Amino acid sequence: MRVKLLGGAALSLFFWSGAAFAEEGMWLPSQTPALGEKLKAAGLELDPADLGKLNVAPLNAIVSLGGCSAAFLSPQGLVATNHHCVYGSIQYNSKPGQDYLTNGFLAKSNAEDLPAAPGSRVFVIEDLRDVTTAMNKGVTTKLDGLTRFNRLEDNRKALIAACEKQPNRRCDVRPYFGGQSYFLQQQLEIKDVRLVYAPAGGIGNFGGETDNWQWPRHTGDFGLYRAYVAPDGTSVPFAKENVPYKPKAWLTISQKPLAEGDFVMVAGFPGVTHRHWTAAEVRHNFEAVYAIDQQLRADYSDAISKATSGNEAAAIKYASILKGSDNYKKKLLGEIAGADAINLLGRKDAADAEFRQWVAADAARTAKYGKPLADLDALVKEANQARVDNLRLGTLNRAQLLSAAQQLYRWAKEREKPDSQRESGYQDRDRLPVRERLTQIERRFDASVDRKLLEQALGEYRKVDAAKRNTALEAKLDRIGVDALYATTKLGDTATRLGWMDKSAAEFEASTDPFIQLAVAAYAGTISDEQKAKTRAGKMQAARSAVMAGQLAFAAEQGRTLYPDANGSLRFTYGHVKGRARDGLIWTPFTTAEGLVAKQTGKGEFDAPDVAIAKLKARDFGSYVDPKLGTLPVNYLSTVDITNGNSGSATLNARGEFVGLAFDGTLDGVVSDWSYDSSINRTIHVDSRFMLWTMEKVHGAQRLLTEMDAKP
Amino acid sequence: MRVKLLGGAALSLFFWSGAAFAEEGMWLPSQTPALGEKLKAAGLELDPADLGKLNVAPLNAIVSLGGCSAAFLSPQGLVATNHHCVYGSIQYNSKPGQDYLTNGFLAKSNAEDLPAAPGSRVFVIEDLRDVTTAMNKGVTTKLDGLTRFNRLEDNRKALIAACEKQPNRRCDVRPYFGGQSYFLQQQLEIKDVRLVYAPAGGIGNFGGETDNWQWPRHTGDFGLYRAYVAPDGTSVPFAKENVPYKPKAWLTISQKPLAEGDFVMVAGFPGVTHRHWTAAEVRHNFEAVYAIDQQLRADYSDAISKATSGNEAAAIKYASILKGSDNYKKKLLGEIAGADAINLLGRKDAADAEFRQWVAADAARTAKYGKPLADLDALVKEANQARVDNLRLGTLNRAQLLSAAQQLYRWAKEREKPDSQRESGYQDRDRLPVRERLTQIERRFDASVDRKLLEQALGEYRKVDAAKRNTALEAKLDRIGVDALYATTKLGDTATRLGWMDKSAAEFEASTDPFIQLAVAAYAGTISDEQKAKTRAGKMQAARSAVMAGQLAFAAEQGRTLYPDANGSLRFTYGHVKGRARDGLIWTPFTTAEGLVAKQTGKGEFDAPDVAIAKLKARDFGSYVDPKLGTLPVNYLSTVDITNGNSGSATLNARGEFVGLAFDGTLDGVVSDWSYDSSINRTIHVDSRFMLWTMEKVHGAQRLLTEMDAKP
Repeated sequence: MRVKLLGGAALSLFFWSGAAFAEEGMWLPSQTPALGEKLKAAGLELDPADLGKLNVAPLNAIVSLGGCSAAFLSPQGLVATNHHCVYGSIQYNSKPGQDYLTNGFLAKSNAEDLPAAPGSRVFVIEDLRDVTTAMNKGVTTKLDGLTRFNRLEDNRKALIAACEKQPNRRCDVRPYFGGQSYFLQQQLEIKDVRLVYAPAGGIGNFGGETDNWQWPRHTGDFGLYRAYVAPDGTSVPFAKENVPYKPKAWLTISQKPLAEGDFVMVAGFPGVTHRHWTAAEVRHNFEAVYAIDQQLRADYSDAISKATSGNEAAAIKYASILKGSDNYKKKLLGEIAGADAINLLGRKDAADAEFRQWVAADAARTAKYGKPLADLDALVKEANQARVDNLRLGTLNRAQLLSAAQQLYRWAKEREKPDSQRESGYQDRDRLPVRERLTQIERRFDASVDRKLLEQALGEYRKVDAAKRNTALEAKLDRIGVDALYATTKLGDTATRLGWMDKSAAEFEASTDPFIQLAVAAYAGTISDEQKAKTRAGKMQAARSAVMAGQLAFAAEQGRTLYPDANGSLRFTYGHVKGRARDGLIWTPFTTAEGLVAKQTGKGEFDAPDVAIAKLKARDFGSYVDPKLGTLPVNYLSTVDITNGNSGSATLNARGEFVGLAFDGTLDGVVSDWSYDSSINRTIHVDSRFMLWTMEKVHGAQRLLTEMDAKP
Repeated sequence: MRVKLLGGAALSLFFWSGAAFAEEGMWLPSQTPALGEKLKAAGLELDPADLGKLNVAPLNAIVSLGGCSAAFLSPQGLVATNHHCVYGSIQYNSKPGQDYLTNGFLAKSNAEDLPAAPGSRVFVIEDLRDVTTAMNKGVTTKLDGLTRFNRLEDNRKALIAACEKQPNRRCDVRPYFGGQSYFLQQQLEIKDVRLVYAPAGGIGNFGGETDNWQWPRHTGDFGLYRAYVAPDGTSVPFAKENVPYKPKAWLTISQKPLAEGDFVMVAGFPGVTHRHWTAAEVRHNFEAVYAIDQQLRADYSDAISKATSGNEAAAIKYASILKGSDNYKKKLLGEIAGADAINLLGRKDAADAEFRQWVAADAARTAKYGKPLADLDALVKEANQARVDNLRLGTLNRAQLLSAAQQLYRWAKEREKPDSQRESGYQDRDRLPVRERLTQIERRFDASVDRKLLEQALGEYRKVDAAKRNTALEAKLDRIGVDALYATTKLGDTATRLGWMDKSAAEFEASTDPFIQLAVAAYAGTISDEQKAKTRAGKMQAARSAVMAGQLAFAAEQGRTLYPDANGSLRFTYGHVKGRARDGLIWTPFTTAEGLVAKQTGKGEFDAPDVAIAKLKARDFGSYVDPKLGTLPVNYLSTVDITNGNSGSATLNARGEFVGLAFDGTLDGVVSDWSYDSSINRTIHVDSRFMLWTMEKVHGAQRLLTEMDAKP
């Protein structure tokens, strides 16, 4: 899955003191009833109260794929998401002579559905409930940072463990408003996921990198999975006798043409935003962290390019790492330019000053929020320095065998404890993902490249003050020498590497493998660093949750409702189909068949199938022509507020009917992760009519249209 | 001067058989009377006949700067052109503590005008007359390729020599329609050019590389020179007592607000287009030449970057070469993408087929054009291979000392002949420019870098068949060795290098300087290659001029008038102020103050002076506010047909009044050098009102506004 989804919504107090931007917000489902009047005014035709309910449509039809969002479109477990979200599964099933990436794939019957890539999951939302009281059990103001952190972690693990006693459930507890509250999200984990349909690559990724993050766009970025369960309805891994999962709810395909100005809404799983960060944190991020991050990122890309130059096999292995790094560089550039363009730092400073004035203006408020504010300021200062250091220290993780060895030794050390006391990420529930990550190394590792990346990383590592570095690790590395490290390790072998998952700490400590020795040497220092970080995190949680309580009170006094930063949990956002105007430039809200044909070159990134182009040219639009546009719509823009993780989110109209999928934002809008600006931020959707047209006219998928009751 | 101007007009027969695109065309002044009705219909309020006259306004006010276009704006020799055209002169006059590049420059009186950069010229057009008969004197069909070429060259040199007997005139004879006709262009050469005004760099280059070739645009890309002559009116080099030149004509500043849809016209000196190339030439160019060119160019940029890495002084010396190379790479990408987007090869094939059918359909036509067509096809095939070879062979010229040595020895050899018989480029009239080029090396040469570039170039050179290479040069180079070459040469010293301009061929032949020895060794082979190229060029001229006569007849039969490809001579183009619409996207024709303010970040490429931003925010637009837009216009789009060399072209309204300067096109329009498409090609102009506002409100240049009678 590519990190593509940008956009988002901002807790910008600066704006609230001026005009209100109704489109903004990644709302918790439990917040939607309170939005009732606004939703009605915006055009919603459903009962707003229903939008907060997880056990009925539409929310009940919304699923997570872990990293992407999706939705059920039929009673037979058909799941719609983005092409770039099912890309790995298309690739996994392709081979010479069977090029589904290029030609697309269509199962002619359920029996032809193909197993999705290993690790593919469909998570069905079952519960999202406030567990703040349970989380804060025993968390008193007396606790110091580390004790506080550990108590919260213990409470969190206990809540998760209790929830996961139910079979096949994946549960998580996440902080909201900096730990001012906590919600537990419970999902049914479906492990048998199959690929049903993917359009030709020339449609699913039409425009490629050239059009990525751009408007106008003409991409059919969609594909279909099907969720399978055992005949008795329980979630089991792939088995031939499994049957389609019958969801409680699925979305109805809209029969009403979507038009400019229409109300639209999206539910999905946005990953991370930083709209509640303090002005000092944001300033430090843009003025210090990003400058170093850009440099490290550029050097990393260069180092990979040089290390793989002339070695095609290695270049292929590192292609996705390199692409990811370059994509991240591009996003950084977009964020920096966007921050300048919207005067982000000025906005944050103004909002910060306004809140502090409100606190200072009243003795009771000062008593309540004054100390937390001061504490937070001090902690942010400390954390800021740590962020810069960690950027450089973290480069060592680019050496995959070093990182694997450390993870393995930690695994062995944690296994000495009872499961409930193990560190998050090292519990029994984490065994499968850890194993999958350790396995994956085989497809993206080359010893000569890894070595060069380690050497480059060491150069960066050693720029950090010696006191902050892991001196035991360095001393051991100096004794072994980089030559010997790669000459004698056996960790490059997958079976050997995975074998270490079942060994004891003592076996690690007796090992002659140089990477294992490094991991053992590094351990004490790593734990010590982690304790420091946890201490700071515990203090930070205390200060930030108190300050956020103040922010919530301030907002409430002004009649505003705040929404928490994105954290990967289910959110609801709404807006309108709307273009965008800048000086000299207007984006109209829909692109159409004619624009796709105009972009088609028949090669490279603009290579839709001949049959698609011929039918578009012949205006063979079937029943999907838009009455106002007089042609087939392809993509559209809206003001819904999304970010990474919302990829594949079903888009619904005022009646809760399916009208397409969100799949991207624009590069100059990525700053929305920090602050939403309704004049800039737009989400790009693929129109359901283009999806249905492609399925019917290009790939003959009438069977699926009938299943979805799409009445072509 | 940066090569920035793109856009252009196409001899696309494909289009003429369909819709007609009136906006297209880089017309000879002598062709404009024939356009009379079309010009009137398009909105021209002047007498079309006057547009063809060189001795009255507006054409009389149009001047060339050699590489850029410009125009007189006052009776005191004030010349308006682009900021990027006067950039070198601003740089030349800047020094620490006197940063005109950043702050701009304003002469408070004529006495404060600053000498422009060495070599700066203003060329005032005096004549552009058909000399086809004189050129063809003695050129019979009996002549073989080389004799034909030489006869044409002799005739050309004789015409130029006769013309340049008049003092201070620069004359040139150029081929039109592939040598179907010839025109002599006579210009008064003004050698004392001074910088009068330049806006702050944050206005003149607002948007920098980010906005280069882009719309929306907000760049105040303008500056002012003044032409000076001796008190007696003759053209002389800079002297304190010189006085402003009094042009016969100058442009009136428009007092009528320019609006969307208005007629606009431009006269200037477009450099090169290829709209009359055959389909086979264009196909070969895009399918073979550009692929190699891109590779060579990328390797060249890489080689420079590597060779200058860690050596700041060398990096600075090669910065403009590197920037030029990267800019060229970007343009190539734009051309290739554009060719795909407009299906250039399909258009050219269709036009070619149509013409060939017309020839084949009639016996008389077949008799007249059949053989030239077949000859041209064969010659194109031969020339195509030569183009590919020459790309690789030409890389040797990147080694500046080798190139200089060869030019110097050639200079000595040519000086053995009477001036009239010397090769073009080596006559007495060429002494100054040759000397200037040889001098310039000192600012962009570093021996260690030159050496690495030579070694890289040799790798490319040796990929060409040995039979096509200069074996004497290679043998000599092998004997000397690259080490010795750079260790012992004295050519890196400017005085030494220039000293060779006055030495005899015998002195070269006796020299121990290794680069001189290389040049002597290479000479015979170079002359032999040149003879082959001249032979092919002579044959090509015969075939192509005959085929073009057929194309002209074909066009005439259909009631169409053709215009010749751009060749650096004076051309006239007209169109309208017009935005552009694509699927999902609309470019509105004007950008405004609000858009500039929105782009301002106060740093980097978006850093207009504080005073400008403050006044724009305060809507202190003076008399320059546009009544329809309700704000200050900054840049606008039009359909006028221009290319490189048109930079700085005055833009005139329907009454021939000054309304701004052309300064750029858009990257997806660069394919217009091959074929014009009115749905894509747009020229970007700086609005005269933004120029005047900047002069008055930002820099207090009322004196100049009064001189231009601009009535602020």
